[in-house]
Amino acid sequence: MFQTFTSTADPSRGPARLDRLRRAMGMKGLDGFIVPRADAHQGEYVAACDARLAWLTGFTGSAGFCIALTDVAGIFVDGRYRVQVREQADMGAFTPVDWPEVQPGDWLKDVTSGPTRIGFDPWLHTRAEVERLEKSLLGSGVTLIATDNLVDQIWEDRPAPPNGKIIEQPVEFAGQSSAAKRGELADILLSKGQKSCVMTLSDSIAWMLNIRGNDIPCIPVVQGFALLSDDASVQFFTAEGRVVEADPGADVVLHPAKAFAAALKKLDGPVRVDKGAAPYAVSQILTEAGVAIDWAEDPAILPKAQKNPTELKGAREAHLRDAAAVTEFLAWFEAAEKTALTEIDLVRELEEKRRATNALLDISFETIAGAGPNGAIMHYRVTEDTNRPLEDGNLVVLDSGGQYRDGTTDITRVLRVGDIADEEKRCYTRVLQGMIALSRTHFPRGRSGRDLDPIARYPLWAAHQDFNHGVGHGVGAYLSVHEGPQRFSPISEQELLPGMILSNEPGYYRNGAFGIRLENLVAVQESPVPAGGDSDRDMLCLETLTYVPFDTSLVITDMLSGEERAWLNAYHATCREKLAPRVTDAASNWLDRACAPI
Amino acid sequence: MFQTFTSTADPSRGPARLDRLRRAMGMKGLDGFIVPRADAHQGEYVAACDARLAWLTGFTGSAGFCIALTDVAGIFVDGRYRVQVREQADMGAFTPVDWPEVQPGDWLKDVTSGPTRIGFDPWLHTRAEVERLEKSLLGSGVTLIATDNLVDQIWEDRPAPPNGKIIEQPVEFAGQSSAAKRGELADILLSKGQKSCVMTLSDSIAWMLNIRGNDIPCIPVVQGFALLSDDASVQFFTAEGRVVEADPGADVVLHPAKAFAAALKKLDGPVRVDKGAAPYAVSQILTEAGVAIDWAEDPAILPKAQKNPTELKGAREAHLRDAAAVTEFLAWFEAAEKTALTEIDLVRELEEKRRATNALLDISFETIAGAGPNGAIMHYRVTEDTNRPLEDGNLVVLDSGGQYRDGTTDITRVLRVGDIADEEKRCYTRVLQGMIALSRTHFPRGRSGRDLDPIARYPLWAAHQDFNHGVGHGVGAYLSVHEGPQRFSPISEQELLPGMILSNEPGYYRNGAFGIRLENLVAVQESPVPAGGDSDRDMLCLETLTYVPFDTSLVITDMLSGEERAWLNAYHATCREKLAPRVTDAASNWLDRACAPI
Repeated sequence: MFQTFTSTADPSRGPARLDRLRRAMGMKGLDGFIVPRADAHQGEYVAACDARLAWLTGFTGSAGFCIALTDVAGIFVDGRYRVQVREQADMGAFTPVDWPEVQPGDWLKDVTSGPTRIGFDPWLHTRAEVERLEKSLLGSGVTLIATDNLVDQIWEDRPAPPNGKIIEQPVEFAGQSSAAKRGELADILLSKGQKSCVMTLSDSIAWMLNIRGNDIPCIPVVQGFALLSDDASVQFFTAEGRVVEADPGADVVLHPAKAFAAALKKLDGPVRVDKGAAPYAVSQILTEAGVAIDWAEDPAILPKAQKNPTELKGAREAHLRDAAAVTEFLAWFEAAEKTALTEIDLVRELEEKRRATNALLDISFETIAGAGPNGAIMHYRVTEDTNRPLEDGNLVVLDSGGQYRDGTTDITRVLRVGDIADEEKRCYTRVLQGMIALSRTHFPRGRSGRDLDPIARYPLWAAHQDFNHGVGHGVGAYLSVHEGPQRFSPISEQELLPGMILSNEPGYYRNGAFGIRLENLVAVQESPVPAGGDSDRDMLCLETLTYVPFDTSLVITDMLSGEERAWLNAYHATCREKLAPRVTDAASNWLDRACAPI
Repeated sequence: MFQTFTSTADPSRGPARLDRLRRAMGMKGLDGFIVPRADAHQGEYVAACDARLAWLTGFTGSAGFCIALTDVAGIFVDGRYRVQVREQADMGAFTPVDWPEVQPGDWLKDVTSGPTRIGFDPWLHTRAEVERLEKSLLGSGVTLIATDNLVDQIWEDRPAPPNGKIIEQPVEFAGQSSAAKRGELADILLSKGQKSCVMTLSDSIAWMLNIRGNDIPCIPVVQGFALLSDDASVQFFTAEGRVVEADPGADVVLHPAKAFAAALKKLDGPVRVDKGAAPYAVSQILTEAGVAIDWAEDPAILPKAQKNPTELKGAREAHLRDAAAVTEFLAWFEAAEKTALTEIDLVRELEEKRRATNALLDISFETIAGAGPNGAIMHYRVTEDTNRPLEDGNLVVLDSGGQYRDGTTDITRVLRVGDIADEEKRCYTRVLQGMIALSRTHFPRGRSGRDLDPIARYPLWAAHQDFNHGVGHGVGAYLSVHEGPQRFSPISEQELLPGMILSNEPGYYRNGAFGIRLENLVAVQESPVPAGGDSDRDMLCLETLTYVPFDTSLVITDMLSGEERAWLNAYHATCREKLAPRVTDAASNWLDRACAPI
């Protein structure tokens, strides 16, 4: 199993560790120290050696940070984690802070008085982050001091950094050689007069070098830092002693991670650095060495987001493979004695079905299986402590995905247990209508995710309902299941470009009662002009990648328009056609029933 | 008739007038002069004395400008007017320029060489406009010189400025006394430390002083400049000799327009000035007099946009009165021998029906009546030259509105002549679905028009169709039918606030073939929570103000969802209920048929 169900919270160790951290602060002459969840690569998951926040506090959420002062230690967590932090951390030692409503600068001004020196590890915070914090502290008497990591000093049995195999993502799946990708990025540098570029985002590096690894859970990257030169050569700094089963090209040279700082000092400027991605330490080292910096976004972000035809072909195949596994699961579920099952049983069985493809390399995130009221917890992760048995009348939100060599998947369906009330069915139908509306839309080139987000919300809005998350996130190609910059969100101004893969996942959540979320992945593509369409309009549309039936017994058919109904029936016909050759007889029989027209 | 149908183009006079302008330029030592369509108040319509662009060039469009140089005279017009300008202006003397694609600064750099002095009337251009142009001319050798208006010098029979009656907009309709409004605006000035404010937008002044007038067509304002002090007193500078039948309060004093410049010089700073609204001359005079300027938006714009309960009550009544007139028209049309009618006949008859209410004070804009291919011209104005007879198979776009003491209306319906092809009906149904979708939506407080615009486009988008205008504009309360800052548009970031009135008018246009536009006015309101809605969500919704039936024989019923059909039937039932008591028996019988459920 990739997924675990233990509650890793261990509130008991926190107070003693906090005491030791405070002693280390005292020896450094500091009044405080910041311990973030993030590592130097600012990714969503961290390696065991980088789980400093969890080690210190017990809190295992995927975002947040602790500011430890001599008399108080605030843990800053967002809305997803306000219950969890209280269960996982010792509330005698740590004080939860509602972030981002309360900003660290304001909190610091509140709880400190007089000159206060706060230490931070300059490798774990971006330049943009430190600048924001410094600005908010102007005139407060609080100063930020870049320093060694004090947690690492006191963490005696700290795991070693990951140094697993580096494997190749072959052109067969990547669609473009590393040399070609590096050439295009070098052209960007040349056009801006930048001599080189510092790259610190693990997925950008993996994309550029056509490499993958298993340094951290769920995201198949190799952690390290890269220096891309304007001649398209790369120095890649990563843990020593790795087995390398990839050949990104002769002009890509591996170096030990510890040589990175020295290499930075030797660069000719101007050097391109992403203020929102690169560690503060990078710009600190460059500035001290007198190397000119040109602030600009990581140049791989946009090319990586626009999948090429080979990546899209891979994505289609990965999604059908994954869909066949999910179909086997759904057929199994239909036949199962449902009320004898728990949420964990569903997660285990689903992972088994994916493993049975013999192609699963990892799950793309920890499966969310939320039954009844747990379905209303948007980022629910089931543990032995929270595990609910399924009960008659439950809806179960099942949100999961797999990592395959040819693509990353992410799919959400809602399972039913016994008879479901009409109110839940009405909400289910509206969520489905929103998902269908976005699936069907064309849109003028130049629009952003913000412009499409309302289309998926509209059926809920018209009923005075809504949900508190974006309609969808970007997805990588055998990389992170959450990939920027594209997304369907009220605040996303990024233009939607052909080849971008996104999730289409409206939902509806009623606290303490039930949750609904329906998710397919889609790819932005140039739109063919259908009969009757405006042949002179340059529009894009969304290609559906995910083909797994929706539970039509939860749909109130009368609420659908003729076109919605036609879309759903055509979708189900396609599911059957695409999946039947890939599944067992039992699952094929289930498909016949599940895909019957309504 | 308020509306006229003459083509006012007179290309023959242009060349001689241009010659005289060039001589005037020479005497001033200028190499060029800018003649804008705009007057000092930057409104949509201008008085006869301000129609300088039309006088010089013959071009009568509602936007654009001419830059006359010694050897070339460019007329800058947008996409709406590229055919019209060629018909109205002498193409030997004037050169059309595609604006805003070609910006005046770039054009000037192209056509001039060496030092070039371009004159402009500082009362006819805003500070923002001049700054933009100056910035684009940096380093080009072209300099802008504020000067007297050279057109006024050579325009011998120039009409006098309007000096009609100033009438009161009583509290019965305005909902708030001028003293109360001025008090609120003064509070804004006090909160910003501004001693006074220059107000130059005619509708802001009309709103603030609860006055109306008939200086210009379609917008019932009194042209002038106002100085609002932080003690809520106002000096109002306008044409001399007006009859005043209004009493905005003892602390509002009228002065002749010519005293305005002197009054500006005597102000204590800082003075609030709207860079995008006030003439360049205003800031020039203040700066020369050493008066400090605080740049900020006209403070009346947002309060004016958020109609109070009295204004909303007035709007509802005005819309029902107007709807009854339109209903009489539609009943007349149904009975008429349609192919014996022309576009002008429709405009005349519709104005007659509105006049028969005995409450019509003006039309709110020139009625658009476009039959067949003319319907595809979005801003079509029928003249004797363009007038089309109605033909079997035509759709007719009819977009019109009235000015009443209690409100301003704007409504578009599509008439049918004979049998209509299915393709047109499909497009009509999609436009109607978009209009219904926006009518039905609720939305979270804080959203802007940009966030709602896609909802009305979606049914067209899904068919790879779209239209090239915003979904709707703001509307005034017995003021301008086009009122900012609110609108439904892909670029509108203005938050939608309760009380704002907007049009909801998606359309579809096929060049040379047909046009469709369907328009109701709506008011933003706090949303009651319907059964099943999220009671904890703070959402707004849109109250429909316009109640006139749509032609259900143009609707393809199968394309509608159950909820769309229910909305349409409920809307028609309400039309019948509200209008039947207000119309003749013949129209009431027509209503019975037109409002029958589908």
